[in-house]
Amino acid sequence: MNTMIKNADILTMDDDFSILKNQVICIEEDKIVYIGEDEPFFFLPNRIINAKNKIVMPGLINSHTHCAMTLMRNRSNDLPLERWLQEGIFPIEANLTYRDVYCGAMLGIAEMIKSGTTAYLDMYYIHEASLEAIANTGIRANLSYGVSTSSRVKELGKQGAEKYCKNFLLSNKKAMKGRVNTSVEIHSVYLVDEPELVLSSQMAKETDTLIHIHLHETQSEVENCIKRYGMTPLQVCAKTGILNNKVTAAHTVHVNDEDMLLMKEKKVIPVHNPSSNMLLGSGFADIPKMIELGIKPALGTDGAASNNTLDMFKEMHLASLIHKGYKMDSSAINAQQVLCMATSSGAKALGFDDCGIIKTGMKADITIVNTDSLNMTPFYDPVSALVYSARAADVDTVLVNGEILMKDKQLTTIDEEKVKFDAAKSAARLYSTN
Amino acid sequence: MNTMIKNADILTMDDDFSILKNQVICIEEDKIVYIGEDEPFFFLPNRIINAKNKIVMPGLINSHTHCAMTLMRNRSNDLPLERWLQEGIFPIEANLTYRDVYCGAMLGIAEMIKSGTTAYLDMYYIHEASLEAIANTGIRANLSYGVSTSSRVKELGKQGAEKYCKNFLLSNKKAMKGRVNTSVEIHSVYLVDEPELVLSSQMAKETDTLIHIHLHETQSEVENCIKRYGMTPLQVCAKTGILNNKVTAAHTVHVNDEDMLLMKEKKVIPVHNPSSNMLLGSGFADIPKMIELGIKPALGTDGAASNNTLDMFKEMHLASLIHKGYKMDSSAINAQQVLCMATSSGAKALGFDDCGIIKTGMKADITIVNTDSLNMTPFYDPVSALVYSARAADVDTVLVNGEILMKDKQLTTIDEEKVKFDAAKSAARLYSTN
Repeated sequence: MNTMIKNADILTMDDDFSILKNQVICIEEDKIVYIGEDEPFFFLPNRIINAKNKIVMPGLINSHTHCAMTLMRNRSNDLPLERWLQEGIFPIEANLTYRDVYCGAMLGIAEMIKSGTTAYLDMYYIHEASLEAIANTGIRANLSYGVSTSSRVKELGKQGAEKYCKNFLLSNKKAMKGRVNTSVEIHSVYLVDEPELVLSSQMAKETDTLIHIHLHETQSEVENCIKRYGMTPLQVCAKTGILNNKVTAAHTVHVNDEDMLLMKEKKVIPVHNPSSNMLLGSGFADIPKMIELGIKPALGTDGAASNNTLDMFKEMHLASLIHKGYKMDSSAINAQQVLCMATSSGAKALGFDDCGIIKTGMKADITIVNTDSLNMTPFYDPVSALVYSARAADVDTVLVNGEILMKDKQLTTIDEEKVKFDAAKSAARLYSTN
Repeated sequence: MNTMIKNADILTMDDDFSILKNQVICIEEDKIVYIGEDEPFFFLPNRIINAKNKIVMPGLINSHTHCAMTLMRNRSNDLPLERWLQEGIFPIEANLTYRDVYCGAMLGIAEMIKSGTTAYLDMYYIHEASLEAIANTGIRANLSYGVSTSSRVKELGKQGAEKYCKNFLLSNKKAMKGRVNTSVEIHSVYLVDEPELVLSSQMAKETDTLIHIHLHETQSEVENCIKRYGMTPLQVCAKTGILNNKVTAAHTVHVNDEDMLLMKEKKVIPVHNPSSNMLLGSGFADIPKMIELGIKPALGTDGAASNNTLDMFKEMHLASLIHKGYKMDSSAINAQQVLCMATSSGAKALGFDDCGIIKTGMKADITIVNTDSLNMTPFYDPVSALVYSARAADVDTVLVNGEILMKDKQLTTIDEEKVKFDAAKSAARLYSTN
């Protein structure tokens, strides 16, 4: 299928932050093959998208979530992390079935596509259910699988689970025309013991996948780690070989100067999760300082249970504001930096080298945003407008791998009513038993 | 005109925070005359609104804005207050005409109604243009008029302007069937000299109107005031008699313990403006501490030039999160407190005793929110859902004074395309000369 996007004002998100006006984009199957002012004579499109008066940008990338937890939206608010987990979340998760995870993943994916997100990095259980949802919806994702936090441990034993994990990582790597990628999940240094940290590190090396970990989220996580290991979680990661892999680290809120230099040296990609870090009272990650040091943070929603949406526009808005307030410096972070976090840096956090930027040769993961809503009028600077004024509801069209997943604000691969019905039913069953 | 709302799940926002299920609301002209489980035999409605699967709540109240500045949306970001004003805003405002203020006010009002806001407290110039927009749209507002910061000073001289101000305050008080109220604008202690602070205070007393002031917004405002007066801005307000009136004070970011007690004693209503205070690097107002002391803060967007929207859902979301992050305490503020700020406390900040709550005898200012969007599924707790998951785009129906201003997401009193066209044209002219 060949797709042409006409009259495109493109926020490319390339290294020069180029903004191109009134362009033609040609997409052959899953790839961008041409960007220019004229319609190329060689290209015969099967369909044409008119982007007049819209912003064409790379799809937003949600670099840390637990997609199926969308079932637990607003289940438990205004509680600290420990009580939130023990009272609100764990009792529900104890009863999760394949179908619940599928329905939760479908709901989360539907919400993400509708709000302009084209890819996500996921840490959860019953991965096969998530894979089915990804296959059915057409979104891009990287699924993280834990060596022994896998839901198959009981069934297969520890060694069996390890084999299953390795097989999962390898067999789903670059699957579904490259839409799916895999990574090794290490939940955290506090939930995973030292031998398994070493094992996970080796598994990532052997399978050539990145590691996805919760790191330095709360002050008590860091304090307890120092008590247990005599060092910070990041230092434990260095010691156990984890940092010799590509690492995408969610949260990184309580990071001292030494740890930050370690992150820079080892090219760790921190994922900023402002909603979740505030909702759970964890604090503010020092994203401006990281950026100053040359670290390139990505952006994520975390799970809806601690957010309570998967709306990357809300997350961009928060990321653009909170650091200015906290540092009492209106130039602490700017809209351009926030957009990088949500696009090009996100692609790196997910281990996709071929998306996050609109450029010839890249995959066609594209979000098209209306600029004619009341909240975008008057419209001048697309960068400011996207971060400070746009809402998820302004997203008009979404493509992943060259396929149209939303057109004129309507999902094309998802039956929205059925997804809401199924998710509500799953949630009702889970909540009734708790 | 008699209106009936059926199948209403009502977040009343009364003192007991009652939530009523499956109710009938009867509205006679501008007033709620009945709330109950059964349709009363005596009531003959001219129109019926079905609120099944929706939340019925008091209209949101934007307690501090500069509505016509919506023309300057995204004009100037990532700058501190002083440069933002001098470089971004003042050059534009120097050329504002009646028509610009009218078009800007229409745009801002349209955006507010569309996002569920039914009333606002406004501080700006060329009030007659704002009055025209309010008359044409049906929204509720309190307009603040400055004794000598009025745009009529040049034309009328100081004494003439004073008379004009007094006349404006009295003649528009409770105007348009009580939809309009007036207040004395004191821009700030730093822009208004001491004799005028005293004069403004007397004017408020004589006209029995409240005072609307920017107070303790930035650290430098407080420091400079101490240098100039040997006391804080709040203490200057006490000294000049201002605090012997009803005072609605925007921002109140840098307030020490003594000042906070003064606010409590004098029943000052602080207005929290989280977006603006972060965008301009001003800091975080200690709203949780104020609430703990028994002060009842309201919530506002400030002008779109320092926000860059007039979206109270965004503002509620920010108010619910930032204090949890800043204090590293997930229970620092809860969703119920944030909803009070945006409704019942807002009504008091605007000097309207008869709205902000859904109750028999109150004005029918009502916002009806859909609960069936993806981002609200699964739906259980309306309080959490409204603050943490709802978006402006979920607002379905808006009534002010018993009149329907939006139905099925369509504005009824405003030609949205024309409002956007006119505002864009005004902005283009203003920007082209700067």
